[in-house]
Amino acid sequence: MTNGAQALMKTLVDAGVEVCFSNPGTSEMHFVAALDDEPKMRAVLALFEGVATGAADGYARMADKPAATLLHLGCGLGNGLANLHNARKGKVPVLNIVGDHATYHVKYDAQLQSDIETVARNVSPGFVRTAKSTETLSQDAAEAIAAARTAPGQVATLILPADVSWSEGGVPSAPLAPPTPEPADDATVEAIAKAIRSGKKTALLMGGHSLREPSMLAAAKLAAHGGVTLLAETFPTRIERGAGLPYIERLAYLAELATVQLTDVEQLILVDAKAPVSFFAYPGKKSYLVPDTCQVHTLVAPDQDILASLNKLNDAVGASQAEPKLQPAKRPGRPRGKLTAEKVCKAVGELMPENAIIVDEGITSSLMLSVMTAGAPRHDMITLTGGAIGQGLPNAVGAAVACPDRPVIALIGDGTAMYTIQALWTMAREQLNVTSIIFNNASYSVLNIELERVGAEEAGEKAKSQLDLRGPVINFAEMANGMGVHAVRVHTAEEMAKALEYAQRMPGPHLIEAVIPESLSGVKRRILPWMLRSLPSLPLSVSKALKRKLAP
Amino acid sequence: MTNGAQALMKTLVDAGVEVCFSNPGTSEMHFVAALDDEPKMRAVLALFEGVATGAADGYARMADKPAATLLHLGCGLGNGLANLHNARKGKVPVLNIVGDHATYHVKYDAQLQSDIETVARNVSPGFVRTAKSTETLSQDAAEAIAAARTAPGQVATLILPADVSWSEGGVPSAPLAPPTPEPADDATVEAIAKAIRSGKKTALLMGGHSLREPSMLAAAKLAAHGGVTLLAETFPTRIERGAGLPYIERLAYLAELATVQLTDVEQLILVDAKAPVSFFAYPGKKSYLVPDTCQVHTLVAPDQDILASLNKLNDAVGASQAEPKLQPAKRPGRPRGKLTAEKVCKAVGELMPENAIIVDEGITSSLMLSVMTAGAPRHDMITLTGGAIGQGLPNAVGAAVACPDRPVIALIGDGTAMYTIQALWTMAREQLNVTSIIFNNASYSVLNIELERVGAEEAGEKAKSQLDLRGPVINFAEMANGMGVHAVRVHTAEEMAKALEYAQRMPGPHLIEAVIPESLSGVKRRILPWMLRSLPSLPLSVSKALKRKLAP
Repeated sequence: MTNGAQALMKTLVDAGVEVCFSNPGTSEMHFVAALDDEPKMRAVLALFEGVATGAADGYARMADKPAATLLHLGCGLGNGLANLHNARKGKVPVLNIVGDHATYHVKYDAQLQSDIETVARNVSPGFVRTAKSTETLSQDAAEAIAAARTAPGQVATLILPADVSWSEGGVPSAPLAPPTPEPADDATVEAIAKAIRSGKKTALLMGGHSLREPSMLAAAKLAAHGGVTLLAETFPTRIERGAGLPYIERLAYLAELATVQLTDVEQLILVDAKAPVSFFAYPGKKSYLVPDTCQVHTLVAPDQDILASLNKLNDAVGASQAEPKLQPAKRPGRPRGKLTAEKVCKAVGELMPENAIIVDEGITSSLMLSVMTAGAPRHDMITLTGGAIGQGLPNAVGAAVACPDRPVIALIGDGTAMYTIQALWTMAREQLNVTSIIFNNASYSVLNIELERVGAEEAGEKAKSQLDLRGPVINFAEMANGMGVHAVRVHTAEEMAKALEYAQRMPGPHLIEAVIPESLSGVKRRILPWMLRSLPSLPLSVSKALKRKLAP
Repeated sequence: MTNGAQALMKTLVDAGVEVCFSNPGTSEMHFVAALDDEPKMRAVLALFEGVATGAADGYARMADKPAATLLHLGCGLGNGLANLHNARKGKVPVLNIVGDHATYHVKYDAQLQSDIETVARNVSPGFVRTAKSTETLSQDAAEAIAAARTAPGQVATLILPADVSWSEGGVPSAPLAPPTPEPADDATVEAIAKAIRSGKKTALLMGGHSLREPSMLAAAKLAAHGGVTLLAETFPTRIERGAGLPYIERLAYLAELATVQLTDVEQLILVDAKAPVSFFAYPGKKSYLVPDTCQVHTLVAPDQDILASLNKLNDAVGASQAEPKLQPAKRPGRPRGKLTAEKVCKAVGELMPENAIIVDEGITSSLMLSVMTAGAPRHDMITLTGGAIGQGLPNAVGAAVACPDRPVIALIGDGTAMYTIQALWTMAREQLNVTSIIFNNASYSVLNIELERVGAEEAGEKAKSQLDLRGPVINFAEMANGMGVHAVRVHTAEEMAKALEYAQRMPGPHLIEAVIPESLSGVKRRILPWMLRSLPSLPLSVSKALKRKLAP
């Protein structure tokens, strides 16, 4: 006899879904019970749903296949929504399994009753389905997995009523193959090749799945051959980086700066990316960042074959044999003295091991991270794709589960860390090789900047206290200890470097709390030089204009 | 010159909305800046949106008027959804202010773009509105507040685009009065009076706003006169209790037990309550708990005047002069020896001060709380209305802000505490008089019971590990210290009592971590005697049947 949950479990592992990040409740108990029937399924418990969904996101970014989440009705899904939003914006495959009341119980409007489908549609517009019967449940699951895996990847939600799960009559379903992506058609490739040959200033904006070695090398050939500038979207889902790979400059978060990066670009070619817009709107500033005179071409849509399309384009312009320019190996040196956010990034750049996974949710504090790690040993970097903070620690959990042999280093702001701090417990329980570095500047630093950018700089004390994390200052090391994670507070660059070396030597999770008190003007002082240094190609005239505009 | 945010702020305080529980982002910066223009508005920062929404819920339960939340776009609302669900189910007035992108920015589908209205509709079906212009914003707000305050109370959501907030031309609006509730009509009252006079066994099920002194006294007169049994819904939004008030037995969470409480009831009269259904469905068990032969009458619908309706009924049956039976003063005695969950509840019953607010989210560990505090000094108790755990600590924040002169004691399970643990920081920052008692049994104890109740008791090790919070066991005292809250771990009943006395003596927040390791069979051993003891009226035959059914 096989119940629905047991058949579902078999269907999942047969389709390669072998990890479930779970936070179950009563309606999920049969799914939980079925875990023991299926040795190939690993269940990782999270103490908050946002950790489970963010872990599934991080897992899929590194494993290139979906994990399942297991969530408790509409409220569990609600708690997981922010990180599912990030997965959706990052085009990451995730399979949500959301338990529901038994079908016949719904009409009684019991306490936990809510409209799950509506909430789910927000993050998985392409696939939301409530399983109607035990017999058809596994087919629903196979279709949900195929939907999640359909290029470019998406969140799919399967709602599992308790009686569909517990009833007998389950039949496992075979995996369904997602459609094979096609390359860009000949006419598109030819039109873009012609545009490139025109000699106009051209940039290639790469996003989504294009920031992996094969596609990056292909794009770098185009750059070497045709003088095309390579840019990456602001918040890549996953970007392969480091010595021996092409260096691709990311578009800046600050619209003011992104506008500068796009100055004089006459043709923008999109590769699994959107034409850039500002993150937020600001009074009197433009949202759409592409210059008015710039023509936008889409070479590869998100559901197309990126590498094949780039190869076709290289053939068309004759760049196939070009020699791509690669990033030379270069470490930034060991930091010394009083600790600053830059020195934390420098320590990471200097000391990060081979093959690391870097999770970047340091917000203002990690602005220098990309520069400091550009020539470090080869690594992957994953970033805040949807802007919903609280992604970093859960992403680190998922990445470490996906890649147990690779060290994960997560750089996290203090404000952001607090949204999903419960992730530390899962790191301890699973003994994951994650080093979490928390920048403790006791402030929502970015909001101090945004307050001015939106023109509300005359804010008084009450307003400023809303951006201030003092009174009390959080002790993250103590919190981590409370969740079973080895932790240390560091106040100097030397301590920082030593703590990072120790963490890389000793298996299991570590937390390093980098105490970097600083004022708003300190943040601004940091940002301006970063802007100027991190864009070596910036024309001098622009640098000067920028300096006037952004000086403290 | 008045911008939208400034006009909105004035509209809020003029309508009595004087507290805003906030977790702002860039799109909310003008609202934040406007805080300093309005001395009457208190802004309380939360480090996670679920804390802000749960605090607004707790505030309104005690203040009997809404607070505002300030949330950052759809993802901020998502993070706050679970506690808004609890507020919705508890019919609690809450005004959500959800910032959104500028109206003209929406079309660009920037990173944080999502469908806010759809998410909001789930928790505020009665009022969701996106403000369209600065000129009409304040009128929208006045209508939203009136909607929130319309009996019985609801969550209302006002979505505030950044440009509507920052543009000049705001005009404050005067408060709008919500409609006045009407009492039950004469025909309904007469029909119910006739039913009571029939002599059939009758119970009054009281919920919502009926569990306050005036209505409870009116119902107690009816009980004294006509032999009507008084029952309260399982999870009251707020119930006034203690010595000198009528004791009203709550319907049990366990459907098996609630069924027993309703056995032989021939007529059930609803007072701002729903006919009882089981919390979850269980294989082979009924969802609807009212006996087949029982007739259900609605005396007071949620939008009606409860006290006036009860008074009319009392007049009709001649109970107006009856002498209500009141709970005598009685403390349970000081607990001694090895610490158990019951002894924690006993310590609270023995030592709680006058006029306390008790927040009960202890799940299995606080089953004895009602019994232990029944004869304590008068107090309010607020409970988990919607079943979405993570409500207790935020509710305590809100209750303490609403009633700064009343001590708040929150009893919280370890599993539930972790959903919104960030609430501790807000308690520290605002120096709230909250004593949080965390029952640390290192388990999702209730799920161990539910696993059996849904018939999945053959669960193996992997399944059981999903319900187990060991490896590592959380140290809540350390976590609390990390957030600036004075904390202590207690292992004996004597230490527990001493810690509680200390906490009541010293102002500001305290956390007491009650370490009560216990096995599943321990939980079951505890539950059975509780069931039998807490329902003194239970017929012996039923006790015996129950003992057979539920014995470990």
